[in-house]
Amino acid sequence: MTPRGPKYVRLDIDKAALLIVDHQIGLLQLVRDYSPEEFRNNVFAHATLGNAFGLPTVITTSTETGPNGPVPQEILDLHPEVTVVSRSGEINAWDSPEFRAAIRATGKTQFIIAGIVTDVCTAFLALSLAEEGYEVFANDDASGAFNKRAADAANDRMRAAGIQILSMFAIAGELARDWRSPIFAEVIPIVDKYIPSGSWLFRSHAAAQAGAKAALPSGLAA
Amino acid sequence: MTPRGPKYVRLDIDKAALLIVDHQIGLLQLVRDYSPEEFRNNVFAHATLGNAFGLPTVITTSTETGPNGPVPQEILDLHPEVTVVSRSGEINAWDSPEFRAAIRATGKTQFIIAGIVTDVCTAFLALSLAEEGYEVFANDDASGAFNKRAADAANDRMRAAGIQILSMFAIAGELARDWRSPIFAEVIPIVDKYIPSGSWLFRSHAAAQAGAKAALPSGLAA
Amino acid sequence: MTPRGPKYVRLDIDKAALLIVDHQIGLLQLVRDYSPEEFRNNVFAHATLGNAFGLPTVITTSTETGPNGPVPQEILDLHPEVTVVSRSGEINAWDSPEFRAAIRATGKTQFIIAGIVTDVCTAFLALSLAEEGYEVFANDDASGAFNKRAADAANDRMRAAGIQILSMFAIAGELARDWRSPIFAEVIPIVDKYIPSGSWLFRSHAAAQAGAKAALPSGLAA
Amino acid sequence: MTPRGPKYVRLDIDKAALLIVDHQIGLLQLVRDYSPEEFRNNVFAHATLGNAFGLPTVITTSTETGPNGPVPQEILDLHPEVTVVSRSGEINAWDSPEFRAAIRATGKTQFIIAGIVTDVCTAFLALSLAEEGYEVFANDDASGAFNKRAADAANDRMRAAGIQILSMFAIAGELARDWRSPIFAEVIPIVDKYIPSGSWLFRSHAAAQAGAKAALPSGLAA
Amino acid sequence: MTPRGPKYVRLDIDKAALLIVDHQIGLLQLVRDYSPEEFRNNVFAHATLGNAFGLPTVITTSTETGPNGPVPQEILDLHPEVTVVSRSGEINAWDSPEFRAAIRATGKTQFIIAGIVTDVCTAFLALSLAEEGYEVFANDDASGAFNKRAADAANDRMRAAGIQILSMFAIAGELARDWRSPIFAEVIPIVDKYIPSGSWLFRSHAAAQAGAKAALPSGLAA
Amino acid sequence: MTPRGPKYVRLDIDKAALLIVDHQIGLLQLVRDYSPEEFRNNVFAHATLGNAFGLPTVITTSTETGPNGPVPQEILDLHPEVTVVSRSGEINAWDSPEFRAAIRATGKTQFIIAGIVTDVCTAFLALSLAEEGYEVFANDDASGAFNKRAADAANDRMRAAGIQILSMFAIAGELARDWRSPIFAEVIPIVDKYIPSGSWLFRSHAAAQAGAKAALPSGLAA
Amino acid sequence: MTPRGPKYVRLDIDKAALLIVDHQIGLLQLVRDYSPEEFRNNVFAHATLGNAFGLPTVITTSTETGPNGPVPQEILDLHPEVTVVSRSGEINAWDSPEFRAAIRATGKTQFIIAGIVTDVCTAFLALSLAEEGYEVFANDDASGAFNKRAADAANDRMRAAGIQILSMFAIAGELARDWRSPIFAEVIPIVDKYIPSGSWLFRSHAAAQAGAKAALPSGLAA
Amino acid sequence: MTPRGPKYVRLDIDKAALLIVDHQIGLLQLVRDYSPEEFRNNVFAHATLGNAFGLPTVITTSTETGPNGPVPQEILDLHPEVTVVSRSGEINAWDSPEFRAAIRATGKTQFIIAGIVTDVCTAFLALSLAEEGYEVFANDDASGAFNKRAADAANDRMRAAGIQILSMFAIAGELARDWRSPIFAEVIPIVDKYIPSGSWLFRSHAAAQAGAKAALPSGLAA
Repeated sequence: MTPRGPKYVRLDIDKAALLIVDHQIGLLQLVRDYSPEEFRNNVFAHATLGNAFGLPTVITTSTETGPNGPVPQEILDLHPEVTVVSRSGEINAWDSPEFRAAIRATGKTQFIIAGIVTDVCTAFLALSLAEEGYEVFANDDASGAFNKRAADAANDRMRAAGIQILSMFAIAGELARDWRSPIFAEVIPIVDKYIPSGSWLFRSHAAAQAGAKAALPSGLAA
Repeated sequence: MTPRGPKYVRLDIDKAALLIVDHQIGLLQLVRDYSPEEFRNNVFAHATLGNAFGLPTVITTSTETGPNGPVPQEILDLHPEVTVVSRSGEINAWDSPEFRAAIRATGKTQFIIAGIVTDVCTAFLALSLAEEGYEVFANDDASGAFNKRAADAANDRMRAAGIQILSMFAIAGELARDWRSPIFAEVIPIVDKYIPSGSWLFRSHAAAQAGAKAALPSGLAA
Repeated sequence: MTPRGPKYVRLDIDKAALLIVDHQIGLLQLVRDYSPEEFRNNVFAHATLGNAFGLPTVITTSTETGPNGPVPQEILDLHPEVTVVSRSGEINAWDSPEFRAAIRATGKTQFIIAGIVTDVCTAFLALSLAEEGYEVFANDDASGAFNKRAADAANDRMRAAGIQILSMFAIAGELARDWRSPIFAEVIPIVDKYIPSGSWLFRSHAAAQAGAKAALPSGLAA
Repeated sequence: MTPRGPKYVRLDIDKAALLIVDHQIGLLQLVRDYSPEEFRNNVFAHATLGNAFGLPTVITTSTETGPNGPVPQEILDLHPEVTVVSRSGEINAWDSPEFRAAIRATGKTQFIIAGIVTDVCTAFLALSLAEEGYEVFANDDASGAFNKRAADAANDRMRAAGIQILSMFAIAGELARDWRSPIFAEVIPIVDKYIPSGSWLFRSHAAAQAGAKAALPSGLAA
Repeated sequence: MTPRGPKYVRLDIDKAALLIVDHQIGLLQLVRDYSPEEFRNNVFAHATLGNAFGLPTVITTSTETGPNGPVPQEILDLHPEVTVVSRSGEINAWDSPEFRAAIRATGKTQFIIAGIVTDVCTAFLALSLAEEGYEVFANDDASGAFNKRAADAANDRMRAAGIQILSMFAIAGELARDWRSPIFAEVIPIVDKYIPSGSWLFRSHAAAQAGAKAALPSGLAA
Repeated sequence: MTPRGPKYVRLDIDKAALLIVDHQIGLLQLVRDYSPEEFRNNVFAHATLGNAFGLPTVITTSTETGPNGPVPQEILDLHPEVTVVSRSGEINAWDSPEFRAAIRATGKTQFIIAGIVTDVCTAFLALSLAEEGYEVFANDDASGAFNKRAADAANDRMRAAGIQILSMFAIAGELARDWRSPIFAEVIPIVDKYIPSGSWLFRSHAAAQAGAKAALPSGLAA
Repeated sequence: MTPRGPKYVRLDIDKAALLIVDHQIGLLQLVRDYSPEEFRNNVFAHATLGNAFGLPTVITTSTETGPNGPVPQEILDLHPEVTVVSRSGEINAWDSPEFRAAIRATGKTQFIIAGIVTDVCTAFLALSLAEEGYEVFANDDASGAFNKRAADAANDRMRAAGIQILSMFAIAGELARDWRSPIFAEVIPIVDKYIPSGSWLFRSHAAAQAGAKAALPSGLAA
Repeated sequence: MTPRGPKYVRLDIDKAALLIVDHQIGLLQLVRDYSPEEFRNNVFAHATLGNAFGLPTVITTSTETGPNGPVPQEILDLHPEVTVVSRSGEINAWDSPEFRAAIRATGKTQFIIAGIVTDVCTAFLALSLAEEGYEVFANDDASGAFNKRAADAANDRMRAAGIQILSMFAIAGELARDWRSPIFAEVIPIVDKYIPSGSWLFRSHAAAQAGAKAALPSGLAA
């Protein structure tokens, strides 16, 4: 057996909290590295991760009474219990004492982060969190930038600091771990709502099975 | 004044009916000229046009007990009154007497069509309808193909027969015609639900206006 | 009812013949508007159409003892009865008396054509056939060019002469017409072999149904 | 000599007017078939054409007190003498009597049009103008859509009605016609301001010539 | 036999002349719908067509003492006998009496054209030539534009006037017609010099054959 | 001589085993970073590596009686001797004791891995294997994701843990090492079947050589 | 709390200087990884950073009397006080004693760099600065290359030496830090001038608020 | 002053040798991550670097009597003095004793490498050279792969071993260092021949200067 290799830092449902950073209706108009349809889907999917996996969630905004605007009501409705940390000026949320307090109040050491724009709000905070010693996982699907090139550069900058860039599905899979786990029941509606190709696959399977049973002589199908 | 030019055949809410062709959960898995998120959005938006504009709607499927599968429940729920014309074999829906009857029962002369796949189910039917003398408008956003190249070829084939290829937003705009029309109230929720960039724009405007009023001395805001 | 519109010229299994034009191993190396994997798949699928639908097939080559090389053995094996019309010089196959004779010997009026390269071998012949009054259908999937832009220009040139550009799947669908037709049994293996996404869909359906039946108490499954 | 071919309908500075359709700050946020930098450049260049070539100009807006917003001040500043035709509801500007009056008041028969979004505001109006018998030239650079595919479909729809789709540079060139014409002095600043690659070329040439003269013994350079 | 279809207007070596329009070193820097390597290759290939096929050739330039600059020496060297028609102002070369005289002096009725930029210098002249009743063939490979979208629009504008857009290889093939023709000896060096993939194919074939013969016992190889 | 540099960890036929992870017919429908034709080709090529190079092979699946479905029969037929490790729940195969046992039973220290989807099934397992101290080589061609961006992020995550991402051809080349090795005879059919451009090249060479010999006076060719 | 992680080296307005490297009108013509409109915008935005944030600025050029040409006057006008370091030969500006002196004269330890071309003038200097121990931040938006691939390789080369690659917006955000800071007043005009999507957003907000106030009974609006 | 940073390993004309690896006419047909025109240009440019900078050059081939074929004659003509190391089997050239001897005979410690295909012939050798302690610089422009994705993966693999990936222009610039150096006279023809955009720029400058002088009264121009 070869010697032990590099540690695989994986998401752990008991250690993780969710961060929703500057997902505001004004800023949403600036995102161009995803189509609007894809990005809205991804942003709502990100917000849903907190509910599905029971993760403490922190929502923060930047000057929301200005052009950046408020968080979409759909996201607030998913988290009725969360108080939004409304930053009146700090671009890097970590520079806000209220935000740092909210982070520490979660008691967690792993943070799943997404925000707008990737190269500013997401990257600055992620880099500060990593510097603090937290394990940071950036949800690439739900962070948006002015263009793909800016997003790529920001992701590479974060990687250089040890931040892991993941898709939303990888985050969900790493949290859930086992299809037999009770938590997995929470993953199914995420797939149905936010991963359409997965949804069609699940539904096709169910329809085919229902059809097979329906084709049996009446009374025999399970 | 120069002489009268080519006639502009525009959609007319009084002449138009909506066709939903083979939007089935199995076939939805085959579409690759849109991302899954975009295409589900577009297909549901297409189905909603019938409701929003009060258009007679015909839904048809191809061998739905086989791999093609049933229509997504969301679409059926939008049209509880519509009987699905379930074709057991005809690839071109026009070859089905039941479908032809359903078309004629609408009493309309303009048809807004979308289907899967663009080069087969959509194009064959659209070409037959055009040959019959109907005015055909294909919703490009809601027809899907194996790849963009197949869709392009199919759209060009339809254009050569006088079929007009439009975006969903162009269809909605041509039907509604005037922002002051009562029918326009039906367009707003379509934008909010299916055109995210438009939704953020609308919401940003409303938030800015609400903010401006809230900043007034209490009691003075309209 | 509005007046009769433009005629829909559709493929008819009784009128159609298949043309395989300069699908030679040397020329196959020049094609760059498809990946090599896609193009080999498409070229073999094109050749299979003749067998599946019982269409008279004409294979022709250009200076095959030179760098253009011979036709892949897989294609010849599909058509053991066909004599290859080996042109020693004519770039446009229609300039070859032997080829014209082979065309006429088919007794058909519709020709499904694909070849390498699209802008020369396919387009020149297709334009000559159209000039002769034949109905020409070009299989876009199985014609290859030096780059996409050359293919686009060639397809537009053909369209201007009334030639219809179709995907392979549209050709198969327009020939088969009905899933209940005996001919459709021939389409299933085409899908399984040449349209992988369709193949996985079909197999998933079958697996789901088999699973549903297997889950029944023994002896009850149909 | 072969017989006379199809008429080349070219822009004529004496027959042409400029139309600026719904270039509004809200709608500008929706455009995604150009980068924001390119599109702002192109929209301002379009507005400048009226000044450079002394064309009567009509500016119109759609519900500008709502989310669509006002026209950028930069455009209004270019046309201090133009009264904006503010439509309170009509999506197709031709449906507005005030707009029709403004068109007729120009006394022109050729219209250079650009607007947001291409498939609605630009296409609907262009199609109506063509139906009226006007010669319509759409500035493709300055019309924006939700995505490239929607723009392509709209441009094809316009082409089918005889509308010519041109780049801004083609419009300027067809209006100016001759580098020696006095009007051409107006084209140089357009190139310098809106066509950066042309600007660098012009400046490089001037710098090289200045350098060559500077290298001469003092007093000899022209 | 079906009735005679649309006429196939094909290039004829006895009717054709070559036009080289504004292929100038300043303008070459503006082209962005091809990589610089591809475009230089294509422009030189275009110029070579005149030599290879013995076509009368007309070269014209626009204000060549200004930033547009002179024609690359490589092109002039290919055509030592051609007098360049140097236009001091006319953007559309057809507006120049000297150029019209040069066209008429060729005594030809088919013109193969390429120029910079596609939407101005190429399209304007091509449209005028078509209007005059000439048959016009635009070499898409050797016309360059500011971007692909401008080129696409210009090509569509030309197509609408009956101009045929072809690749360089299609032009060469349609002129040569037969690999056995003496003229074909002129095509081989074009392929070797300007179509690298064809060159490697030809050379691979020759190397393989030489290798096969070399492997024979000495003295036996042909 | 400069000092010894970083160790080049290369694949070694004596140390390597092949892993086929969740290549199941349901999951195959979800892959969108390759065309279906390319991906099926690549997945089958991956499975063939085990046979060609005589590598111990482990096949595993995830809940195969559900929508994920079974492994394609073509893959099972290549490995009749392999028992599929069917995981009923573990997303990361390393979490399955049966799978860990199968890995250890190979007695190998290098693992060539591919799976669906890249960011979940491939990456999680690869990261765990690397943590265990194994040398991991991911076959990028045969791992599929929802989109290219998710695949890129997953590959970068694996690279950060020292996992090497390779093409299938690089894997084959690094295992075979020498064209004269007996093992290389196994590589030829892989190229012919799964690398079409290589296949055409090989066949062209053979045809040219055969032609050269055939051209000799009868009896002299080797 | 986990232990302190990797240091986040962020831009600090007190430590940073701006470098403008070979942004010359000849070299600007060579850049092809951005559209000309985007790149001019980005280059002017880069130059403006020095003014907006009061950073010492160093401008350097390479053989500016030759084809590389002078710096655009717009950039010089932004920095009337800066003496351009005109290198007569050194490709890597660090090889120039005058340039090294200019760098040291700034007294800063962080350098924000952009130049043409990315892989030569930007990368060579950035690598030398990093080797000297400076903290280097490359503005990816304002460095241009012959193609995207060359830029990607150069950026990766710089990253391997610890140089951080950022977007212009990230640079501005990291310097400004807080929307309430007096320095932020300088950021607003940058957004308005160089980030059009941000400009439209800001203006839309202002227009909506003005509209809301205007809709109040006269005299009541703030 | 901050402490000394990471060492910048730059190319040094006195330490460097050039490697031309498997640039063979058969393999050239397999390359698809560049257009054929670009890649031939880049491969010839790579070979010219040895001549221009007087670098010892090693050319090697793999089974050149088979389908891989010989090196293009143009490359051999550039290096009449070089004996090609013809490997009869070793895929990684480092496995060949003759090749290792040729490397050592150069007496150099830096190697500039390019080859076909990137992920096999280039990467394997580059990784072995790096392991030996040499400094390796891969010319990305002149290494070709089956597709861009395979090239990206191979380049990342090389980067992880400290190999630097550069463009051809970066290599030339880092070797030449100063426009005033005598060696730079060798760079001008490289730009003129292999970097067309640079060539047009240089020529435009010369033409403008010649024109400025020609415009002077006769006898005064320098």
